[in-house]
Amino acid sequence: MNSFGQIFRVSIFGESHGECVGITIDGCPAGLSLSPEDLAADLERRKGGKHKGTTPRQEEDFPIFKSGVFNGKTTGFPITILFENKNIRSEDYTKQRSIPRPGHADWVAHQKFGGFEDYRGGGHFSARLTAGIVAAAGIAKKLMKGLNIHAEVIEIGGNKDLEKGLQNAIDAKDSVGGIVECRVNGLPAGLGEPWFNSVESVLAHIVFAIPAVRGIEFGTGFAAAKMFGSEHNDAIMEMDGRTKTNHAGGVVGGITNGNELVFRLAIKPTSSTPKEQKSLNWDTEQVEKFSIKGRHDLCVALRAPVIVEAVTALVLCDFMMLEQKIPRIIE
Amino acid sequence: MNSFGQIFRVSIFGESHGECVGITIDGCPAGLSLSPEDLAADLERRKGGKHKGTTPRQEEDFPIFKSGVFNGKTTGFPITILFENKNIRSEDYTKQRSIPRPGHADWVAHQKFGGFEDYRGGGHFSARLTAGIVAAAGIAKKLMKGLNIHAEVIEIGGNKDLEKGLQNAIDAKDSVGGIVECRVNGLPAGLGEPWFNSVESVLAHIVFAIPAVRGIEFGTGFAAAKMFGSEHNDAIMEMDGRTKTNHAGGVVGGITNGNELVFRLAIKPTSSTPKEQKSLNWDTEQVEKFSIKGRHDLCVALRAPVIVEAVTALVLCDFMMLEQKIPRIIE
Amino acid sequence: MNSFGQIFRVSIFGESHGECVGITIDGCPAGLSLSPEDLAADLERRKGGKHKGTTPRQEEDFPIFKSGVFNGKTTGFPITILFENKNIRSEDYTKQRSIPRPGHADWVAHQKFGGFEDYRGGGHFSARLTAGIVAAAGIAKKLMKGLNIHAEVIEIGGNKDLEKGLQNAIDAKDSVGGIVECRVNGLPAGLGEPWFNSVESVLAHIVFAIPAVRGIEFGTGFAAAKMFGSEHNDAIMEMDGRTKTNHAGGVVGGITNGNELVFRLAIKPTSSTPKEQKSLNWDTEQVEKFSIKGRHDLCVALRAPVIVEAVTALVLCDFMMLEQKIPRIIE
Amino acid sequence: MNSFGQIFRVSIFGESHGECVGITIDGCPAGLSLSPEDLAADLERRKGGKHKGTTPRQEEDFPIFKSGVFNGKTTGFPITILFENKNIRSEDYTKQRSIPRPGHADWVAHQKFGGFEDYRGGGHFSARLTAGIVAAAGIAKKLMKGLNIHAEVIEIGGNKDLEKGLQNAIDAKDSVGGIVECRVNGLPAGLGEPWFNSVESVLAHIVFAIPAVRGIEFGTGFAAAKMFGSEHNDAIMEMDGRTKTNHAGGVVGGITNGNELVFRLAIKPTSSTPKEQKSLNWDTEQVEKFSIKGRHDLCVALRAPVIVEAVTALVLCDFMMLEQKIPRIIE
Repeated sequence: MNSFGQIFRVSIFGESHGECVGITIDGCPAGLSLSPEDLAADLERRKGGKHKGTTPRQEEDFPIFKSGVFNGKTTGFPITILFENKNIRSEDYTKQRSIPRPGHADWVAHQKFGGFEDYRGGGHFSARLTAGIVAAAGIAKKLMKGLNIHAEVIEIGGNKDLEKGLQNAIDAKDSVGGIVECRVNGLPAGLGEPWFNSVESVLAHIVFAIPAVRGIEFGTGFAAAKMFGSEHNDAIMEMDGRTKTNHAGGVVGGITNGNELVFRLAIKPTSSTPKEQKSLNWDTEQVEKFSIKGRHDLCVALRAPVIVEAVTALVLCDFMMLEQKIPRIIE
Repeated sequence: MNSFGQIFRVSIFGESHGECVGITIDGCPAGLSLSPEDLAADLERRKGGKHKGTTPRQEEDFPIFKSGVFNGKTTGFPITILFENKNIRSEDYTKQRSIPRPGHADWVAHQKFGGFEDYRGGGHFSARLTAGIVAAAGIAKKLMKGLNIHAEVIEIGGNKDLEKGLQNAIDAKDSVGGIVECRVNGLPAGLGEPWFNSVESVLAHIVFAIPAVRGIEFGTGFAAAKMFGSEHNDAIMEMDGRTKTNHAGGVVGGITNGNELVFRLAIKPTSSTPKEQKSLNWDTEQVEKFSIKGRHDLCVALRAPVIVEAVTALVLCDFMMLEQKIPRIIE
Repeated sequence: MNSFGQIFRVSIFGESHGECVGITIDGCPAGLSLSPEDLAADLERRKGGKHKGTTPRQEEDFPIFKSGVFNGKTTGFPITILFENKNIRSEDYTKQRSIPRPGHADWVAHQKFGGFEDYRGGGHFSARLTAGIVAAAGIAKKLMKGLNIHAEVIEIGGNKDLEKGLQNAIDAKDSVGGIVECRVNGLPAGLGEPWFNSVESVLAHIVFAIPAVRGIEFGTGFAAAKMFGSEHNDAIMEMDGRTKTNHAGGVVGGITNGNELVFRLAIKPTSSTPKEQKSLNWDTEQVEKFSIKGRHDLCVALRAPVIVEAVTALVLCDFMMLEQKIPRIIE
Repeated sequence: MNSFGQIFRVSIFGESHGECVGITIDGCPAGLSLSPEDLAADLERRKGGKHKGTTPRQEEDFPIFKSGVFNGKTTGFPITILFENKNIRSEDYTKQRSIPRPGHADWVAHQKFGGFEDYRGGGHFSARLTAGIVAAAGIAKKLMKGLNIHAEVIEIGGNKDLEKGLQNAIDAKDSVGGIVECRVNGLPAGLGEPWFNSVESVLAHIVFAIPAVRGIEFGTGFAAAKMFGSEHNDAIMEMDGRTKTNHAGGVVGGITNGNELVFRLAIKPTSSTPKEQKSLNWDTEQVEKFSIKGRHDLCVALRAPVIVEAVTALVLCDFMMLEQKIPRIIE
């Protein structure tokens, strides 16, 4: 299913080289002032082509409100936002069709959808669909005043000096992975539940919806597995729940404890490496050498922070509404 | 919400020191032969007290079928399974009540539920509820013949020699974390979808429902963030999708590709360390020294594998039913 | 699926002649005082055998709280309530097994579940499962102070003189149908939405879950189809939305308008009539004469009002929680 | 929520006088050939202005596929269909704004959404949104070969002679209600479940999503409440479940029994009657006389059949997919 959320619920649709990509947001309170300008800054961040190592494909990425906004305010009904696809070069993909690209969804899509999938530019698998997610998150962010969500790349190709990490890849004429860290401040205690509705569960769920994510850890994460309990435990120091350390990353028992929410993601290297590769040719049934053409990011991690912030905002907004911390009418 | 799954759906209930813990499984096909013996082996594995480093609390853990089974077979209607709580020593917890235990849900539960939560033995937060999950998974496993799900601890306290890792903790009189790895063989290609219903999303969701899990990674995981694309890409070698390497861990584009499914979890050290700690006393509003009493695992990671297998089985069974790979009547 | 509700969510399980029937309520706020006595009056009303025309089967119907209640108050976690089955005479049903009873689910259950269904006493289809629904509704009613939900039989066998309608059936040695009307006072305006979450949609959904219901109408209902618009329209007379007439039955555009909520249900005659009938014998594949044995209501409509009130309470409670009209902690 | 369905799931959006109305269909199998022409016949039937008593508003109602269709076939991913709004005369509504129209959602919408709702032409409440529903149903119908769903008006203003019933309203210069009957042939036995997923529950749910529906009855319906059990019971005559009579209307125990599915709906008279009415003026807080302007149907029941067929198709398609009676890839 292409929907997510319980009260503040998003549904995505569209293909990379089809007419458009888009999103519908259901459950947004009425009365929130909303214009394309509110979404512009994050949509601009999401775009490629701005810095070294990102794809030169340039879409206008202008959010077209098709419903749910009236006189500049949300109506309480579904908000559908479209992004038209204009800057398309599908021929790159048609040529490539006989060899399912390693690391890409070509083979699984073909196997699962019987060849009926729109393979151009990754079709529905394309990261272009995150335009809708970033737009929806712009609304979520407006609903959560006082919350600060910040994600950034903290490592490229194992290198904390990001310039150097990227330069290594450029020198190697190869793509490269990275680590993204997200921190949220200003979050109330009491969001989430133990078990299936834990904050970690729901965040991890949506984070793995982002293409190229291969791992997530909260707080100290994998390093916690190497620690003793007396080191890892965060001593509570104040009546408001503030702890001395924050190994938990702000979530205990599935519930936010009012401390900074912290998690990190592993982003794999872009599958579309400029390097020559070997893989199976479907038509000849032979393993062949080939090279990938098209416009691609060298390091997709560089484009991930705004998307990570976006999915985080969607999840937190939904939790806030479940806890009645956002009213049904904004005035 | 305490339910999970779309077609094969489980709902958990109960408290550690209440009358019982239990689970209801909705959506199970009719006609599957089912008896308590089918669930016995995994329930036995789940129990503590068997090896060094696990809690000496011993419950009988006998699954009582309350509904949905007739003449030894499933009826197609909800199966409710109860585990009675007998071996309870709540006084340990009452004494502790004034100091919310670091790493435990005491503080967040109190904050969120206004003090009405059942705090005895962790109440609804207790890992004892995994008895129901393991039982439900026993049913899921019977529905998925030919599938092999295997999880094991591969590291304790940073040590791949598990005996040594555990001995370090015993020597330090401290609890310790660990890494659990899960591998699934025999899985068909084509389970899952891109975006919100990706195999990684749904697995990560349920895995973080397990208490003490702090991270998850698929395939090469966090190490992928340090790699070049040409290293990480798995070349497809056969028409059935088999790849030369398996850095993807069996999932590409959110969809299983028929290769081995591989993921690893970071398990934090047991919060109930035997070590003396400092934390806030709610009544005195002072930070005080204290020690935790009660029966606890030194390394909860040791008890995790059977639970990790269980949640994996639940998720895969649901995906299999969505793909019509399990019939509505088993004959 | 055997679950219903978005935030205040119930899940039913059990069989008529199995170990028990029961329900789990998820999403109930913490802090509500709750004891079996709170549920006793409605459970007593639900029982048969009290008046002419209802089954003499007598169950104790004592609600056993298995989870979610601590120190006499709800904890905010799932509340599971069991009703043990004690007064069972399954031999009546075993004898009957070769002829699927007309009006009953015997044939469809056998066809759908391949003969694995628990057929004794209707199994999971039995109205005995409404014990759980009535219990859950007792909780919902406590959460909605100031709301008055009242249902009653207003017609038996086409007769508004209920005694006479029932006597006709007794004289005819036959079962008989009836009409139940439900009225809710004190409901706030603003519950529900147009389209799929309309108050009528959700109420109708759950009302048809009650066995034997064959129709539902809101306000003037089917009679509205014979009217002119100028007759049917309810003129708004007051700023609080009160209307001169109430043909709408309190719901306009799917949303409550603050007037009395009114709907009526058609209940079919009990399928287990004492009259001799003809139907197919599965074993002989011949149409044969037969008579139904067992303890049955002559007019199930007589037992419906408390169940109709119950499902109404469940739906309204969920709508109230969606609109943030019930807090997460009751103090 | 503006979504409906479990596997074959639709989400509607849009407003009567906004940019568009539309629908997204998620869960449609891949490989179904699909073009606007497939949807044309039913969309044409849905349009007003064709016969006496329907609104002269004429929209082109051309379905624009925005996603999910590639090379003329469905891809297995969300299909979004838009209908642009062109033929709009909003000034009719602006003038009317001070008096909430009786029978319409004006008052409840204003109360619930704080005045932020798009009131033009009923906004999101408008029957214009059924264009999307009819389009989605066109897809569902293509997936269910061999199924015949037919709805028709069987009574207008209490008159089975439809011409006469309509003429009475025209003569009275008033709007009028009617009865719509829907019959489905070719349906397999075994769809649905007892309780919350009964065929009656889910059909009633979606049927009450249609504006102006005030009642629904299955089979003999309300008349069953006047019958004896021996009259109402449908004797099973054949091993395939065929019954002598069909008072049940094809559903027993919530499950289809393979006989014709039959249900009837009460449709209220169009709220926008040409007659002068009295109601409250919000601005003056006085009850005033007023008349409704704008283009409206005299008898909305006349436009209902195609919509009733549509929602029926959506529900049945979802049930068929749950029962694995429609494959995931159509070839």
